[in-house]
Amino acid sequence: MFRRSLSTVAKMKPVTIKCLADVCVIPVSSPSVSDEVAKIQLLLKETGIKHTLHSAGSTLEGEWDTCMNVIGQIHEMLHKEGVLRVQSDIRVGTRTDKGQTAQDKIDIVHEKMKRGFNN
Amino acid sequence: MFRRSLSTVAKMKPVTIKCLADVCVIPVSSPSVSDEVAKIQLLLKETGIKHTLHSAGSTLEGEWDTCMNVIGQIHEMLHKEGVLRVQSDIRVGTRTDKGQTAQDKIDIVHEKMKRGFNN
Amino acid sequence: MFRRSLSTVAKMKPVTIKCLADVCVIPVSSPSVSDEVAKIQLLLKETGIKHTLHSAGSTLEGEWDTCMNVIGQIHEMLHKEGVLRVQSDIRVGTRTDKGQTAQDKIDIVHEKMKRGFNN
Amino acid sequence: MFRRSLSTVAKMKPVTIKCLADVCVIPVSSPSVSDEVAKIQLLLKETGIKHTLHSAGSTLEGEWDTCMNVIGQIHEMLHKEGVLRVQSDIRVGTRTDKGQTAQDKIDIVHEKMKRGFNN
Repeated sequence: MFRRSLSTVAKMKPVTIKCLADVCVIPVSSPSVSDEVAKIQLLLKETGIKHTLHSAGSTLEGEWDTCMNVIGQIHEMLHKEGVLRVQSDIRVGTRTDKGQTAQDKIDIVHEKMKRGFNN
Repeated sequence: MFRRSLSTVAKMKPVTIKCLADVCVIPVSSPSVSDEVAKIQLLLKETGIKHTLHSAGSTLEGEWDTCMNVIGQIHEMLHKEGVLRVQSDIRVGTRTDKGQTAQDKIDIVHEKMKRGFNN
Repeated sequence: MFRRSLSTVAKMKPVTIKCLADVCVIPVSSPSVSDEVAKIQLLLKETGIKHTLHSAGSTLEGEWDTCMNVIGQIHEMLHKEGVLRVQSDIRVGTRTDKGQTAQDKIDIVHEKMKRGFNN
Repeated sequence: MFRRSLSTVAKMKPVTIKCLADVCVIPVSSPSVSDEVAKIQLLLKETGIKHTLHSAGSTLEGEWDTCMNVIGQIHEMLHKEGVLRVQSDIRVGTRTDKGQTAQDKIDIVHEKMKRGFNN
């Protein structure tokens, strides 16, 4: 079961709101991290979460708890590979006015640049 | 139960590694966010999670899933208050070589500054 | 001249190391920011800096002072447009072991995923 | 002079708006970074910039170009010390509606928590 730890005082409750979580994971070990980034991509694929890779991180799309748990799995995987310290930067957004995918966000900007902000 | 959503394809598994998660929450609404930040502090207190406030965010200490879930609760609370979009930046670190609290990190730096790096 | 302010006590000196600066700009005003993001893209084009747009920000490539100054120009542009508060998250990396473009970083990961980490 | 590089195509212009720049510097080398963080604190002191240390970074206060230049000096200092790759996360905010120091931001939150949001 998920929330089984008694040592954790904090009250949890399911957070199922959809989010876009853009994460940049830094294995604090060697300057070359492309091996680790490739392994992260394979793990993301394996979990089945929707994601896209860009030059400064990966954007995950899904429910809050799921996205955040998957990023935690990345940390644990890297630690198992021998990385002593892992640091991530996560930019995460939620909104209630409309649903929007990562691709939607790019499309609307490109469209507005073309149209000249007439709308 | 925690992972009850069938709509979420991604495989979750408990992530219980301790982490330091420093979060800066931005309610994208009005330029003055001190009301929201105060409400966030009250929610943090209510959940029971270990946390400290600084000028650029709050640092949470605890198990991965717990910390991340609590940050998700903040987003949901703000949405319930009427904020349409919430964006957070999370700096989260895990390490397997030693345990370290947020206060430890500050103490060791101050100590090294005094000692002149003799160690 | 650039460093003309006497009110600024801090000592500046040129920082010309190449960097990759990935920035996510948040105009803290309305939930819909696509107009602002489109204007940011036009400003980036106008300055002549090398940049690429992705769903969670824009990656700038160039000398440190230049990249950071251009991001500052974005803030000033948005303020001129009437945005009262602008918050950015910048992930910036520098390295001395080799030069690497944003596209290089993606290419090497894709290559390693294909090759199965044999190298 | 500051903007002397001809190799940089991008157009720079002074950005003197006041900002709060919270930076978390990660020397991607060894898991223990307290030595480097202590050196960063000493460099900050030396430059004369207003700054405060917390467990997840340091908050700089001053004009945009100055703050960002000082962070660049940190990267260069670490590279001189032999660190091959340095990655920073910068949360930077500017606002035109009022001036606010890092301490102000904390004070107002504490005050609102006490007053119970009556205002």
